[in-house]
Amino acid sequence: MKLLLLNPNTSTPVTQLMTEVGQRAAAPGTELIPCTAPRGVPYIATRTEAQIGGAIVLEMLAEQHRKVDAAIIAAFGDPGLFAARETFDIPVIGLAEAAMLSACMAGRRFAIVTFAQALGPWYEECVRDHGLRERCASIRMLDTPFQAISDVGGEKEDVLVELAQRTIIEDEADVLIFAGAPLSGLAERVADRIPVPVVDQVVAAVKQAEAVVALRLRKATAGTFRRPAAKPTIGLADALAARLERRDS
Amino acid sequence: MKLLLLNPNTSTPVTQLMTEVGQRAAAPGTELIPCTAPRGVPYIATRTEAQIGGAIVLEMLAEQHRKVDAAIIAAFGDPGLFAARETFDIPVIGLAEAAMLSACMAGRRFAIVTFAQALGPWYEECVRDHGLRERCASIRMLDTPFQAISDVGGEKEDVLVELAQRTIIEDEADVLIFAGAPLSGLAERVADRIPVPVVDQVVAAVKQAEAVVALRLRKATAGTFRRPAAKPTIGLADALAARLERRDS
Amino acid sequence: MKLLLLNPNTSTPVTQLMTEVGQRAAAPGTELIPCTAPRGVPYIATRTEAQIGGAIVLEMLAEQHRKVDAAIIAAFGDPGLFAARETFDIPVIGLAEAAMLSACMAGRRFAIVTFAQALGPWYEECVRDHGLRERCASIRMLDTPFQAISDVGGEKEDVLVELAQRTIIEDEADVLIFAGAPLSGLAERVADRIPVPVVDQVVAAVKQAEAVVALRLRKATAGTFRRPAAKPTIGLADALAARLERRDS
Amino acid sequence: MKLLLLNPNTSTPVTQLMTEVGQRAAAPGTELIPCTAPRGVPYIATRTEAQIGGAIVLEMLAEQHRKVDAAIIAAFGDPGLFAARETFDIPVIGLAEAAMLSACMAGRRFAIVTFAQALGPWYEECVRDHGLRERCASIRMLDTPFQAISDVGGEKEDVLVELAQRTIIEDEADVLIFAGAPLSGLAERVADRIPVPVVDQVVAAVKQAEAVVALRLRKATAGTFRRPAAKPTIGLADALAARLERRDS
Amino acid sequence: MKLLLLNPNTSTPVTQLMTEVGQRAAAPGTELIPCTAPRGVPYIATRTEAQIGGAIVLEMLAEQHRKVDAAIIAAFGDPGLFAARETFDIPVIGLAEAAMLSACMAGRRFAIVTFAQALGPWYEECVRDHGLRERCASIRMLDTPFQAISDVGGEKEDVLVELAQRTIIEDEADVLIFAGAPLSGLAERVADRIPVPVVDQVVAAVKQAEAVVALRLRKATAGTFRRPAAKPTIGLADALAARLERRDS
Amino acid sequence: MKLLLLNPNTSTPVTQLMTEVGQRAAAPGTELIPCTAPRGVPYIATRTEAQIGGAIVLEMLAEQHRKVDAAIIAAFGDPGLFAARETFDIPVIGLAEAAMLSACMAGRRFAIVTFAQALGPWYEECVRDHGLRERCASIRMLDTPFQAISDVGGEKEDVLVELAQRTIIEDEADVLIFAGAPLSGLAERVADRIPVPVVDQVVAAVKQAEAVVALRLRKATAGTFRRPAAKPTIGLADALAARLERRDS
Repeated sequence: MKLLLLNPNTSTPVTQLMTEVGQRAAAPGTELIPCTAPRGVPYIATRTEAQIGGAIVLEMLAEQHRKVDAAIIAAFGDPGLFAARETFDIPVIGLAEAAMLSACMAGRRFAIVTFAQALGPWYEECVRDHGLRERCASIRMLDTPFQAISDVGGEKEDVLVELAQRTIIEDEADVLIFAGAPLSGLAERVADRIPVPVVDQVVAAVKQAEAVVALRLRKATAGTFRRPAAKPTIGLADALAARLERRDS
Repeated sequence: MKLLLLNPNTSTPVTQLMTEVGQRAAAPGTELIPCTAPRGVPYIATRTEAQIGGAIVLEMLAEQHRKVDAAIIAAFGDPGLFAARETFDIPVIGLAEAAMLSACMAGRRFAIVTFAQALGPWYEECVRDHGLRERCASIRMLDTPFQAISDVGGEKEDVLVELAQRTIIEDEADVLIFAGAPLSGLAERVADRIPVPVVDQVVAAVKQAEAVVALRLRKATAGTFRRPAAKPTIGLADALAARLERRDS
Repeated sequence: MKLLLLNPNTSTPVTQLMTEVGQRAAAPGTELIPCTAPRGVPYIATRTEAQIGGAIVLEMLAEQHRKVDAAIIAAFGDPGLFAARETFDIPVIGLAEAAMLSACMAGRRFAIVTFAQALGPWYEECVRDHGLRERCASIRMLDTPFQAISDVGGEKEDVLVELAQRTIIEDEADVLIFAGAPLSGLAERVADRIPVPVVDQVVAAVKQAEAVVALRLRKATAGTFRRPAAKPTIGLADALAARLERRDS
Repeated sequence: MKLLLLNPNTSTPVTQLMTEVGQRAAAPGTELIPCTAPRGVPYIATRTEAQIGGAIVLEMLAEQHRKVDAAIIAAFGDPGLFAARETFDIPVIGLAEAAMLSACMAGRRFAIVTFAQALGPWYEECVRDHGLRERCASIRMLDTPFQAISDVGGEKEDVLVELAQRTIIEDEADVLIFAGAPLSGLAERVADRIPVPVVDQVVAAVKQAEAVVALRLRKATAGTFRRPAAKPTIGLADALAARLERRDS
Repeated sequence: MKLLLLNPNTSTPVTQLMTEVGQRAAAPGTELIPCTAPRGVPYIATRTEAQIGGAIVLEMLAEQHRKVDAAIIAAFGDPGLFAARETFDIPVIGLAEAAMLSACMAGRRFAIVTFAQALGPWYEECVRDHGLRERCASIRMLDTPFQAISDVGGEKEDVLVELAQRTIIEDEADVLIFAGAPLSGLAERVADRIPVPVVDQVVAAVKQAEAVVALRLRKATAGTFRRPAAKPTIGLADALAARLERRDS
Repeated sequence: MKLLLLNPNTSTPVTQLMTEVGQRAAAPGTELIPCTAPRGVPYIATRTEAQIGGAIVLEMLAEQHRKVDAAIIAAFGDPGLFAARETFDIPVIGLAEAAMLSACMAGRRFAIVTFAQALGPWYEECVRDHGLRERCASIRMLDTPFQAISDVGGEKEDVLVELAQRTIIEDEADVLIFAGAPLSGLAERVADRIPVPVVDQVVAAVKQAEAVVALRLRKATAGTFRRPAAKPTIGLADALAARLERRDS
């Protein structure tokens, strides 16, 4: 099984980090195909960047979707997820979606802990978009600057653990998610310092993608996720234009 | 006062229609500056097209925002609205937002009636994104094909009125909104055949933009709509890249 | 356009304050017709006072409604609003309604800040009655007594600003509303000390009334805001009795 | 124990009907003190009439509250209930409140069936005001005119039973409430024709009033139902003015 | 009228305490029939204990239901309540249900105060299961160990009162419920030290059971609380098996 | 990896069916350990049977939990799930939970279709207990009797497909779940006759159990799913008593 690990950010080291964490957790026979956004920003953190990044996700998927069995949109916040699920025939899973749904199986309310203030509003909208507000205890963010996006998980490890510990008590959370692509792999390193289950977003995404492939779900031809009818386009990236105009099949 | 009437679709005749309807309703001294998407699709109708169209809205605003006092994103569904509100300093109003908030002042529940099945899921997400589900009685769509997008309001006038009449009874709506840019101006023509107030989306947007300008609201420097910090970008349209990198101020 | 600025309280100086603030923001050609409750209390602050004040609003409107194009119920809390909207043919707008709906266009969540503890529960019910709980970050009240109701905005200006500043941070609000008729005009004076947009309730009400008149919304003859059927009455104020018995048309 | 059966409508025969039904269900030692509105309308059915009727309830309670142990506001829709609970020291129970809370103990969702279209929107707001939407399966109304308000329960008995039967199936209700003061006593006559428990609103109100008195609940001096501070009034009914100005204690 | 006071816990002294408190509040002619779980745990405090205790409730009711007019499941949290209501013909009332619904008649939001941390999550699910989250201000628990379950109300009286006082202020509660069977009777002793109405759970349950009996509600033969069809069983307690197999009628 | 496939019903053929379907979908190295309830009913369908069955689940898990890496409660409705998750150290997954969370990744709203009217209310409460009402389009049931529980999927195949097809259109569902243990394997047989993705409950449960094991989630020692403190018990099954009294570790 080939899984596209699609990083909608331009940070290749973060793609690499996620690929390593994800490949370790993959079943035998599952191969992660990493893919980094050729344009955009180093790490999506705002509604604006998610709006742009989600459109870039669609361009990337239009190029890659025939080569894989399923795709992971590997940014917590899931930019472009619902659009991708509508337009492409393969299963597409979001990093946040996979982490949150997995967390639901380990408790009633999960808390989300991340490394930058700017991410809070976007993550909050993500929780709402997935209809999971009732299952989310809180979203907490560090409020100090970091040095390099690709190593923020290492640099901030101790304060993230402390914030997680405080969050669990104060917000009555049953499960913890370290959110944000650069925090991939952190769960494994610090799980024994945190008194509730900790869900790793990339591990969750890989396992959920495997699960969805195993379920052999067909592409909808009814409902709100059927493929949209062909429509003319102007000025869009070639592969995406072909997909929207249905010149690709 | 100059208001940018930003059509995120590529249909110039629809831009023209909206400009005429909007200018008629504008206060003395309000000038509508029409602007049609240079790329994208003729009319946005799906999550995918909204994802792409919202990114194009940001590109257009990055070019235009200094020339006007406020902007209207003139597609029902409000692609890119929250991102635009975050990134630019001028007030930005959505067509759906303006119509729905205006409708709230004329009853408890509004119904949304539109011309194509494909629009339903996107509009439903729009209602939810604005936190107005409790105020929305229903969304109803015609289910037959139409000839030309720019004249769908004329072609389907009678069946739209019939659908509106049925919706009001069956879904217990107090107010009606004909949704979708090509239906601009329809309210005025058919209001006397419909037994509840009918809100014209473009008139609502122009009046709400005037209201917001009159309120002289400052750009937030706190809260979730403060302008994001500068961030490097790759491969984005020039003006938008400058705005995100804060090279423009 | 004539707008009735209907103060359901008996404080003439507050009516005057609101008229000045509102008239300054009105479009050319808009004339505010002030009108102060001939009976009731100096300022409505509880469910009981709102119950009584709302009935007085109906008496006042029964006297005045034919003289104006629309009416503003000029007390935050909107006493009698839904009843008035049902019974009269002109548009009727609430001060809280106008402020909250306007605030929705400037952020996701607004905070309400007011000058007296007693107002909290009533305002909370008002937010709920408008179906806007999801958009309201919090309601905060000063807890110290004030000297004169008509000058509470001046007397408490600094502490209100401090409370607003704290609320924005602690409750994660994107927009601020100073609520309570006597605080009209405060927004303009202190906007530059508050890091998010501040909505003035009277300015919002005037502009929303203008918007609704511009939309030329017909009186409903279906839905839950159609005019009730004639009904005999005993012991009600003359004009109101005539309206309810349909002897007035 | 003396219970004020306060009819906010002017129909003495309906007061009499409710008194008979209620007294039959009362515990030994419970005496119902009937009291009919001296002004208002024969039967409250709209938001407007509820706004006015609720203010009249306060006038009536100001006259009567010292003579009884508790009061029932005997109109389904509970006009003035929350205001009365705030301002007076005795327990005050609403007819709708008592019926709905009692119904909650007999199933998950209750249906409300009543005799006139006009009552629907008011009842819907009543359900919402009590925070019980999740427990309400539906509200259904007859749509044909009736002859005399005091005998509508007899005149429409068969069609009300048929509507109830249909409602239970179609709306998946576990419990049924015949709502509207003139339908008092109907439950007893038709219970065996209806396949779910039927709650009589007056019986429920009397038993709930007895329950609340037995609980010996003190008047709040904190929270949102503490008695409001004294306030000057102009032009209100004498006893009510005295209560609000705190000249009565 | 005979009311089964069914304690699903094995603590006979607690059964005795509740019987005394309840009998004092009962109407003339109401007799409480106490009944203590023959197996289970001394006091149910977790989801697991509620799962088991609820099944034991069904066994106990299968033995006792023909001897009484109604039954009270006398543990706050209401283990087995909805199952019992479905399977037996007599009315069955929960201690939490009765307390919360009674509290609704004395304010908008009630707070729940109890003696042990472990009870919090179970009570929270109980509030949700009754659809009353909107009416619940908060659930607060003591966090220190106690000596004997049957006297925890005496031992912790002062700290419970202090916690209640703090809760009312901090969580803006209008009514207070001391929850947990061993706290029965506490309300009466401390009501004058608490500034809002305090509902005693056992008094509420007895009065609500009397109310429901007075309403003479029939057993549903439709809706979701009709008695389930006969089904074969293996290895269940005799009387319960007979009830489920419909060998008992 | 060993997964306990715990059937809380007494129907061995259904256990066998689920084991076959589940084992086919399992990853290499995953072994399903089937286990059928030694007491209870052939198939749980009501609140009462779920209350009893959930307690039996705990007895079964107390016997088996040390032998496996995770457990599946293999009845749609998830009897005893939250209790089991609290009391045992291994991950425990519900059949309904796994199916619904998996369905969330294939659309916005899933519909649940099952074979018997009696199951509806229980499933509805299950959806609510998981906080997924917003994601559930509807629950639909056949209304004709069936012959043998273990073959109901074969007997009713065509009418279930027809009901699914109708449900998708009428209730606007994006995904379909055939619910009820005896329908395991049906998805695979009929997927090509249904225009949206169909989730098989057993396949989903096996894959989700594998995912959760791969996430290596620790047992909580904080939050609401930490193991309860030791408590004395009377008359419970030996192994369960030992677990609750903490004599087992």
